[in-house]
Amino acid sequence: MPIEIERKFLVTSDAWREQADAGVRYRQGYLTRVIGETDVKASVRVRTAGDKAWLNIKSAELGIRRLEYEYAIPLTEAEEMLDSLSLGRLVEKTRYHVPVAGHVWEVDVFEGDNRGLVVAEIELQSEDEAFTLPDWAGADVSDDRVLPRSICRSTLAQRWK
Amino acid sequence: MPIEIERKFLVTSDAWREQADAGVRYRQGYLTRVIGETDVKASVRVRTAGDKAWLNIKSAELGIRRLEYEYAIPLTEAEEMLDSLSLGRLVEKTRYHVPVAGHVWEVDVFEGDNRGLVVAEIELQSEDEAFTLPDWAGADVSDDRVLPRSICRSTLAQRWK
Repeated sequence: MPIEIERKFLVTSDAWREQADAGVRYRQGYLTRVIGETDVKASVRVRTAGDKAWLNIKSAELGIRRLEYEYAIPLTEAEEMLDSLSLGRLVEKTRYHVPVAGHVWEVDVFEGDNRGLVVAEIELQSEDEAFTLPDWAGADVSDDRVLPRSICRSTLAQRWK
Repeated sequence: MPIEIERKFLVTSDAWREQADAGVRYRQGYLTRVIGETDVKASVRVRTAGDKAWLNIKSAELGIRRLEYEYAIPLTEAEEMLDSLSLGRLVEKTRYHVPVAGHVWEVDVFEGDNRGLVVAEIELQSEDEAFTLPDWAGADVSDDRVLPRSICRSTLAQRWK
């Protein structure tokens, strides 16, 4: 199985929008407190992507086994839960696809608490694969350390997959 | 719409089993702490009945509007969640149907933390509807006050509906 290499950059202008698709809106929130903050044994997450939505239940680590369940639910119900029942901050963004010199970049425009943050991501087949860095790509944030904690690696790399 | 009148009795012997059906097993537990104990805005409940199972999400009261969602989920996944991820006590029982002189009684045999408790219930169309009290029916607990808190009115009257 090929290893996927991701490179991430902050986005410094709107020039990418000329080549972008219509974008898909994503929203995500939790009905439970974060595991570790309380004695809950599982997180319950609501997630929407365009016109689809899911409920996700994930256990804290139980030895080497982690339980995870995901159920498709109606979008309107997910939106209601996110608006009325979720705890803490929502993560909300629109993801666009932008073709650049033979690669397709994913550009995430965050809303809500992370409004103003725009991150571009490219997936490579190997670490030495050549790619063109567009002029709207700024600081390399592949290691995530400059990103707000709420959208750190676990969010970007796992939750939006 | 007809008003349903329920009468409940403790069960004092196993004599009802001769007329009973095979019974259906019910289990129920929560992935969230009780609303009010923490700042959660919704309860997440897992419930099984025979070979069916559901995930139920219910809001605390939001003004006059209470949000509630229920999704059918695979039994094996519900059992796993009840066994590994639920908080607090499970309510577990087997419900039998027992015909007695023209009425069908529901006999609930509790397990787990409530093991030993057996409650029989009959539904009447009116308060003065006559019914035969079988000799295995003991104390009238229609007002629930003698039942353990964990299976009090909210559980018996609402959750198992």
